[in-house]
Amino acid sequence: MAQKLTAGERESKLKPLLDDSWTMVDGRDAVKKTFLFKDFNEAWGWMSRVALRSEKLDHHPEWFNVYNKVEVTWSTHDCGGLSSKDIQMATFCDDTFKLFT
Amino acid sequence: MAQKLTAGERESKLKPLLDDSWTMVDGRDAVKKTFLFKDFNEAWGWMSRVALRSEKLDHHPEWFNVYNKVEVTWSTHDCGGLSSKDIQMATFCDDTFKLFT
Amino acid sequence: MAQKLTAGERESKLKPLLDDSWTMVDGRDAVKKTFLFKDFNEAWGWMSRVALRSEKLDHHPEWFNVYNKVEVTWSTHDCGGLSSKDIQMATFCDDTFKLFT
Amino acid sequence: MAQKLTAGERESKLKPLLDDSWTMVDGRDAVKKTFLFKDFNEAWGWMSRVALRSEKLDHHPEWFNVYNKVEVTWSTHDCGGLSSKDIQMATFCDDTFKLFT
Repeated sequence: MAQKLTAGERESKLKPLLDDSWTMVDGRDAVKKTFLFKDFNEAWGWMSRVALRSEKLDHHPEWFNVYNKVEVTWSTHDCGGLSSKDIQMATFCDDTFKLFT
Repeated sequence: MAQKLTAGERESKLKPLLDDSWTMVDGRDAVKKTFLFKDFNEAWGWMSRVALRSEKLDHHPEWFNVYNKVEVTWSTHDCGGLSSKDIQMATFCDDTFKLFT
Repeated sequence: MAQKLTAGERESKLKPLLDDSWTMVDGRDAVKKTFLFKDFNEAWGWMSRVALRSEKLDHHPEWFNVYNKVEVTWSTHDCGGLSSKDIQMATFCDDTFKLFT
Repeated sequence: MAQKLTAGERESKLKPLLDDSWTMVDGRDAVKKTFLFKDFNEAWGWMSRVALRSEKLDHHPEWFNVYNKVEVTWSTHDCGGLSSKDIQMATFCDDTFKLFT
């Protein structure tokens, strides 16, 4: 079962994400970020990669899409907050998004 | 350019959707519906079909997904409200969803 | 590491697939089947589900697609032939295909 | 209905593709190319974009995938050979593949 990030992990792993435009969700131990693409084709290509990775890790996003915009939230249901899986998936989102920029 | 549905079209085309669990979005001329699947795999297979169809018609959804749940909203930016494209895509959503039930 | 199916497993697990229109590939310990859909939209929705499942099991198909047709071959590189993973994925293909028929 | 490329178009539009590692298919008026990715995740993200674009143009590939490899063939059924749609889709394949390299 997933464990909430410790204070040390929040400093070493979460802080870099918050410095890279991820933000905490109001009232939840969760992070979110908005990704902007050129069009729906690009957005969907990226979402397809995140979908595959999510299924592999059995850790799925909360995400909202309209055309070229994808708002992604990561949190871990099991432990009621941020776990290392969220760090892993948020990092995957960033790494795969970089290709488009 | 898309045209808003007329009163007649709302009776003949929109009403059947509202009778089939689509609802009007508060404060907008838009319809929404929540689709529940067995798991993420089913949800994503369905979303992939809606994505293809959206791109073909150049009419894209506002949608939110978490695991097996997809909340879909249809409205037409061009005309600031519901057009026949929304009816077409909402019907496609329903028709392709039926396979899973 | 994956193990080749035993003689007993070939009788209990492989035979039912060969009775359900999977066939052995000439000169290889592999099975193949052709899936026909109504159109590309259906085919791609199905392929998206098989892709997700493949990534989850870390066991990927050899597949060829043109429009509404998908030819799928399963074999396991690791063991140079059919393993239980192939049975699992071939069964998933059949189960998810049934929805369209 | 699609028209076969003229001699002039073959010089101006097809030749650049043949110079960029597309090759003619033996015995057919068709072009093919093999795309190699890092893994299945990358390959599938790219295929998802090609799928969307294909559906939008109503012009679909013949393609074979195994893990990180995708072999794509373009030809136009309607006219029994290469048309401008094939040029358009082959160029889309190249343009979207560049992101990964």
